[in-house]
Amino acid sequence: MERLGLLLLWVCAALVASSSRPSPHAEAPGCASETVPLSFLTEEMQLGTSPFGSLWPLPRSVRLSPGRLHLAPRRFQIVHGSGSSAGPSCSLLQDAFRRYYEYIFGYSRGHHYDKTLPSEAELTSLQVIITSEDPECDKYPDITSDEAYQLQVSEPTAVLQAGKVWGALRGLETFSQLITEDEYGSFSINVSEIIDSPRFAYRGILIDTSRHFLPLKTILSTLDAMSFNKFNVLHWHIVDDQSFPYQSVTFPELSAQGAYSQNHVYAPTDVRLVIEYARSRGIRVIPEFDTPGHTQSWGKGQNGVLTPCYNGKHPTGTYGPVNPILNSTYDFMLKLFKEIGTVFPDDYIHLGGDEVDFSCWKSNPNITDFMKKQGIWFTYPKLESYYIEKILDMVSFLKKKSIVWQEVFDNGVKLLPDTIVEVWIGFLYQEELRKVTSAGHRAILAAPWYLDIISYGQDWKKYYSVEPQDFFGCKSKKDLLLGGEACLWGEYVDATNLAARLWPRASAVAERLWSEKNVTDIADAYNRLAEHRCRMLRRGIPAQPLFVGYCRHEGTDQ
Amino acid sequence: MERLGLLLLWVCAALVASSSRPSPHAEAPGCASETVPLSFLTEEMQLGTSPFGSLWPLPRSVRLSPGRLHLAPRRFQIVHGSGSSAGPSCSLLQDAFRRYYEYIFGYSRGHHYDKTLPSEAELTSLQVIITSEDPECDKYPDITSDEAYQLQVSEPTAVLQAGKVWGALRGLETFSQLITEDEYGSFSINVSEIIDSPRFAYRGILIDTSRHFLPLKTILSTLDAMSFNKFNVLHWHIVDDQSFPYQSVTFPELSAQGAYSQNHVYAPTDVRLVIEYARSRGIRVIPEFDTPGHTQSWGKGQNGVLTPCYNGKHPTGTYGPVNPILNSTYDFMLKLFKEIGTVFPDDYIHLGGDEVDFSCWKSNPNITDFMKKQGIWFTYPKLESYYIEKILDMVSFLKKKSIVWQEVFDNGVKLLPDTIVEVWIGFLYQEELRKVTSAGHRAILAAPWYLDIISYGQDWKKYYSVEPQDFFGCKSKKDLLLGGEACLWGEYVDATNLAARLWPRASAVAERLWSEKNVTDIADAYNRLAEHRCRMLRRGIPAQPLFVGYCRHEGTDQ
Repeated sequence: MERLGLLLLWVCAALVASSSRPSPHAEAPGCASETVPLSFLTEEMQLGTSPFGSLWPLPRSVRLSPGRLHLAPRRFQIVHGSGSSAGPSCSLLQDAFRRYYEYIFGYSRGHHYDKTLPSEAELTSLQVIITSEDPECDKYPDITSDEAYQLQVSEPTAVLQAGKVWGALRGLETFSQLITEDEYGSFSINVSEIIDSPRFAYRGILIDTSRHFLPLKTILSTLDAMSFNKFNVLHWHIVDDQSFPYQSVTFPELSAQGAYSQNHVYAPTDVRLVIEYARSRGIRVIPEFDTPGHTQSWGKGQNGVLTPCYNGKHPTGTYGPVNPILNSTYDFMLKLFKEIGTVFPDDYIHLGGDEVDFSCWKSNPNITDFMKKQGIWFTYPKLESYYIEKILDMVSFLKKKSIVWQEVFDNGVKLLPDTIVEVWIGFLYQEELRKVTSAGHRAILAAPWYLDIISYGQDWKKYYSVEPQDFFGCKSKKDLLLGGEACLWGEYVDATNLAARLWPRASAVAERLWSEKNVTDIADAYNRLAEHRCRMLRRGIPAQPLFVGYCRHEGTDQ
Repeated sequence: MERLGLLLLWVCAALVASSSRPSPHAEAPGCASETVPLSFLTEEMQLGTSPFGSLWPLPRSVRLSPGRLHLAPRRFQIVHGSGSSAGPSCSLLQDAFRRYYEYIFGYSRGHHYDKTLPSEAELTSLQVIITSEDPECDKYPDITSDEAYQLQVSEPTAVLQAGKVWGALRGLETFSQLITEDEYGSFSINVSEIIDSPRFAYRGILIDTSRHFLPLKTILSTLDAMSFNKFNVLHWHIVDDQSFPYQSVTFPELSAQGAYSQNHVYAPTDVRLVIEYARSRGIRVIPEFDTPGHTQSWGKGQNGVLTPCYNGKHPTGTYGPVNPILNSTYDFMLKLFKEIGTVFPDDYIHLGGDEVDFSCWKSNPNITDFMKKQGIWFTYPKLESYYIEKILDMVSFLKKKSIVWQEVFDNGVKLLPDTIVEVWIGFLYQEELRKVTSAGHRAILAAPWYLDIISYGQDWKKYYSVEPQDFFGCKSKKDLLLGGEACLWGEYVDATNLAARLWPRASAVAERLWSEKNVTDIADAYNRLAEHRCRMLRRGIPAQPLFVGYCRHEGTDQ
């Protein structure tokens, strides 16, 4: 990484992008045209190094000068700049300053090598200035959070400006990525100027704590790695058929009976810790309580919530999806979602709604009677819609907004205007995006980023090559796509392999969702990502290798 | 696992096997017939538990009685039994006793819960008796090592009998697998009798330390896990194109120039440690120094060893395989292999010989001249054979035996009678086994067990379902198949993901190579393997999950 200074003159991030593929149907007639940045490449790409060092995801605009500034760990400080609306009372930033100081200097072999030669220019501080009146120190991030920042690195002080703390967090990460350590433990940074903001507002990671329980430290460590990649949503698929690890205060029997064991439970304090750890990294926590399917574990601790399955006239003793015909179901759900809405501060709750198996509903004579009365006999998707609409209304009544899997939209459920549809089915997902957005709904894309599906080789390139807006629709429709998610479902994943399976494969998604559309040069991405992966390793994330090679610090840090 | 005692009467291991598929061409006319054990199943298989608890790989004969004996950690001892030819001076066994005491009792939450109720029967010791005159305490294991053992567990003392220490090591592992801990931290074991020996003598794991360097502790931890699975060969693919981490005393420049860095080197003490750590677990270490291809890294520290490639009349500055036409090549190889033969005590050295790219040889006019003189113009496989035969003779002269990849056999190289051919190409590997064995050569099978090739789902079942002897040939030919290897090539594997990628997938191969041919019940295997995987986790190996579920100790031990 120390090679960076030797290589470059002023280069602009947009210049790297020369290979963005034309989108065959990106523009519909009658849509306002988009401005496409000019792209050209001034320098030959050198194998093994990127002009942008190890920056990941690539910022919107990067200007690096050949001038290098030395950093002396004992002297260097990250401080609140004058004029900032945030100060020492902003513990979110105070914590971040400490954390990034440690990330920058904490792994050095030549600890506190502070000798700056008189001839060397030195950077003595990073001043962080929050420019808007309310820095949002004590708020939770949301879909509208401002993550933009500007970073100016020049002698003797670097300045990071952001409207809110969220942009400051992203800028601190970028600043830390600019600093390199040479073989003698000496730190330096290029004189540089960065202007940055995300392309998409929703950049998520889905974890699944039902198929396998994930220990708290695994979740916290995932949040660390997410912040290194500028992800901002943890989609916590917390319960499912296999287990119910969420400990409810209102219905403690749900986890007492439905968790794998009493060691495999998230107590209220655990959940609070995850939410606060995430918040302090600018990450939202959106819980998913998937119904009416995927609920086998719910039935263990809550009698009557699931549909009894029948064989002819007799119950079989097994259960199907949530029972949608009982008032008791909705009483229970209201109380549960009221708790969930209080425990999880995010505006959104993910309500699931995917993969409902109708066979048990079909077998149950009471369900059949009910449907006859409702006039929806034999149309089980309608019954599902009947249920989901009630849950959507309930969540709305609780002053929360909903995210649902695409089936809910496909089944024609009346969605509220603020409901977000998550597209997950791989087959024809662009067509689904077109349908959802042309119906005026906002969408999140997960389909091409199911990271639990593994294969031999560098599959990160496949994730990287997805263009999320590559669906039919004019700009106003494309803007309804809020972002996407890398999903790591838990059937074959637990604490033993989560980190190595997620990183750096999810990093490919991170850059796709943060960086400009034209940042598509796979060779440059490889070079930066290989370095970024080594940095994750240094910071304690056992991210797996992209391909052959080595990291300078490995072995000592693993 | 405490459910075991409730379930079973006397059951014999062979009884589980009821689904071994008929082999369409297993018996050739005129071959002596094999005796096939009778197989039948007396009890319904219960989902989630195996009649054989967590035994893995399944011993040849297991008789479990319902009687349970309590073990009190403070009183229980593993000791040399009277009449044993080994005693306290046998440090291999002393270490193993300590190690297995720790594996059995060391992870308990209820440490030293020693209260045995007066009504409970107690097991107070395991007596280990080596029956042959020479226990081989200070020897290295080899292809002929006796790994058979018998284990009798009854009140008040269990007795483990083995001809050699190698069998005792296997028996200690089995003994440890019979002991269960209940929720209150109380240990017990079924009264039982086990007679066991391996089906195949060669049961290997290939690791690759060239594509990625593996820290010493990763290798040692792999040896631990191998011993839990009764593997007995570490095939150490130590150098390749990408890097040369083996530090040679004779040619120190090989690693000084050819390793990724000086932190990515195995010094002589490291190699000695690996060999001794392996020996004390009954594991052979077979180094592979693959030539004439896969040698790019050799050229960095040894001028002239590689073939200069040409463009017309001019050298391009790039290099191809080892240069087979220079005497200096053979002088160098003799010195290097002499060192290797001294450093690695095993009888065998793996000489590689795979995937030689002829294009550079073809480009080089000196090679062309030489071939013309030898009368092998345009037949490059012959040139390769010319080279390999010299290396084979050299290794034989050094009193070592050779293993080669299948191309060496395919190219018609004159093999010495004791040379072993390793079959690795997936396409028609059974036909290759037929060819190799009908030519009278001994073989090792790797082809169906390339564990670096990953895919979604439970691929262990695929590895488990391989029948190695399912090739055409009579018994005497089939007996030439010594065993097999699970290969974890290193292109996408380093310390971050090695353990989770190898275990428990390689465990499937372990049982296939150790247990009887008719042990093929995949449901029973699943139940035992899930428990075995939890045990590996307890012992510090982050083996990944087979499927959904949990381990009782996870979270506390990870």
